[in-house]
Amino acid sequence: MYYAGIDLGGTNIAAGIVDDDGKIIESMSIPTGAQRNFHEIVCDMAELVKNLCQKKQISIDEIRAVGIGCPGSIDSEKGVCEYSNNLNMCHADITGEFRKILDIPVYLENDANAAALGEYEINAKGSKSFVFVTLGTGVGGGVIINGEIFRGFNGVGAELGHTVINVDGEKCTCGRKGCWEAYASVTALIRQTKAAMEKHPESSMHKFAQEEGKISGLTSFLAAKEGDKYANQVVQKYFEYIAEGITNIINIFQPEKLAIGGSISKEGDYLLKPVSAMVERDDYNKYMPKAKIEIAKLFGDAGIIGAAIAAKNALNRD
Amino acid sequence: MYYAGIDLGGTNIAAGIVDDDGKIIESMSIPTGAQRNFHEIVCDMAELVKNLCQKKQISIDEIRAVGIGCPGSIDSEKGVCEYSNNLNMCHADITGEFRKILDIPVYLENDANAAALGEYEINAKGSKSFVFVTLGTGVGGGVIINGEIFRGFNGVGAELGHTVINVDGEKCTCGRKGCWEAYASVTALIRQTKAAMEKHPESSMHKFAQEEGKISGLTSFLAAKEGDKYANQVVQKYFEYIAEGITNIINIFQPEKLAIGGSISKEGDYLLKPVSAMVERDDYNKYMPKAKIEIAKLFGDAGIIGAAIAAKNALNRD
Repeated sequence: MYYAGIDLGGTNIAAGIVDDDGKIIESMSIPTGAQRNFHEIVCDMAELVKNLCQKKQISIDEIRAVGIGCPGSIDSEKGVCEYSNNLNMCHADITGEFRKILDIPVYLENDANAAALGEYEINAKGSKSFVFVTLGTGVGGGVIINGEIFRGFNGVGAELGHTVINVDGEKCTCGRKGCWEAYASVTALIRQTKAAMEKHPESSMHKFAQEEGKISGLTSFLAAKEGDKYANQVVQKYFEYIAEGITNIINIFQPEKLAIGGSISKEGDYLLKPVSAMVERDDYNKYMPKAKIEIAKLFGDAGIIGAAIAAKNALNRD
Repeated sequence: MYYAGIDLGGTNIAAGIVDDDGKIIESMSIPTGAQRNFHEIVCDMAELVKNLCQKKQISIDEIRAVGIGCPGSIDSEKGVCEYSNNLNMCHADITGEFRKILDIPVYLENDANAAALGEYEINAKGSKSFVFVTLGTGVGGGVIINGEIFRGFNGVGAELGHTVINVDGEKCTCGRKGCWEAYASVTALIRQTKAAMEKHPESSMHKFAQEEGKISGLTSFLAAKEGDKYANQVVQKYFEYIAEGITNIINIFQPEKLAIGGSISKEGDYLLKPVSAMVERDDYNKYMPKAKIEIAKLFGDAGIIGAAIAAKNALNRD
């Protein structure tokens, strides 16, 4: 049997058919059109599942359940998106609407939790505790304790990016000042890169930005690898911000494993090694086994796989 | 039947006999003599249990189990203190030694975890998740999820005070800079008070310090309540530091309840109201039920009661 996993993002809806082993056997993606009425978005998601079945030449009856990962405040028990800033949703009964179109069991999960579950099931299965951190446009997180997503009592916990690491610091999208997200996201890295470029017109960061046509999360990394001193300062400081947040998380959770995902994680060892060394230096735990820090392995697929696995788990519980 | 709870601190060993309802029916306290060999400390703890029984005129056989809350890195499964800075201990087999003297089941727990469990059992029982924060000489914490102490995979998690809220900020005892403990502990408050007093010789904080014979955690509170402007600035800023850390914890755990303990919690509503308002303002969760923030109710007894309950729970599990 198969499961469908849908990663409902602010830009794209990515969906896939996932087999019992958590492998994607077919996938598709369409633009979200995030400002539309949620009914239209739900219609598109149901249509995507149908199209995936058609493409893979399987019957819709072979899909045991559908999982949807959705950004925002999610009530998983009710299957309702209570609020999503990115998707312009408020009290949106996504699962109720979905079942009006396709009569398949459907489960809603916060997108970061779903991605954490996906990464856990495929790459950290059996760990007593696991934390997934995504460094992308924002900083997201998901926590898996004893194989279960940890949500807090109201379902909206594990907002790891929205923890202040710098009192009265940079303004964050959440309204606070100094959140980890405002220092360790790619958005923050771009801001840090721009500031250094303005200060140092001689830096090769200007050349790389020109080549790419914009200042991006890559600019400082490319220039630093080429030996640019100022770019290296940006990158090293950025690593420190990442490490501050990860050390905080480790001192709190002491997870057996912690995986770093999101677009910046593609830097692999270039990021992992210095960040791990900083965490090792600062970790409060000096005498017991240490949390293992890794680069996430699923990259963009974690959301689809995790949503499908969330649906599978929920179905097995029901 | 009864349980014995021991709160092994850097200054005193406090112990009590606790009944099945978690009530202390007899208690005693002796100085720790923290620099002594751990065997001597263990002897004293066993002696304390005997003396408590004698004082209460019950037989030692009526004590079903003994729980010990100990600061530092604790391996609860082995009953060993792997490391304690305060107690000068390293790989100290506390439970093994204890049983050589008194043949009663004995369990070792981190002291902050034990206190959290005590407060949970007596005042938050049934909450899906509970966080206990102690603002004292340091900032400690304990997390209870589904009625169980959350320790992380290696037993030393929930070090809530050792999370940086101010990158490159005040030096912390753990070696990092800018930990919550370095801003929200009473030690930090005293430092903040001293700085304000040096700047403002006209502040009535000087009068209160003189009356008490020292600058303490009370100095700024007493002067602020009398209307001293500079003391009020110290107290308000201190509240903000407390709130930053609590908001971080809430964004991570979204616990059903969070209780503030430690010496400063005796300020009651004077502290709780402004801190709660700041957390309410900054909490990432705007659309789901909110974590309930309270002042802890057990004060100094949480450690004894929690250690006894930890022993009771462990015994029931075995």
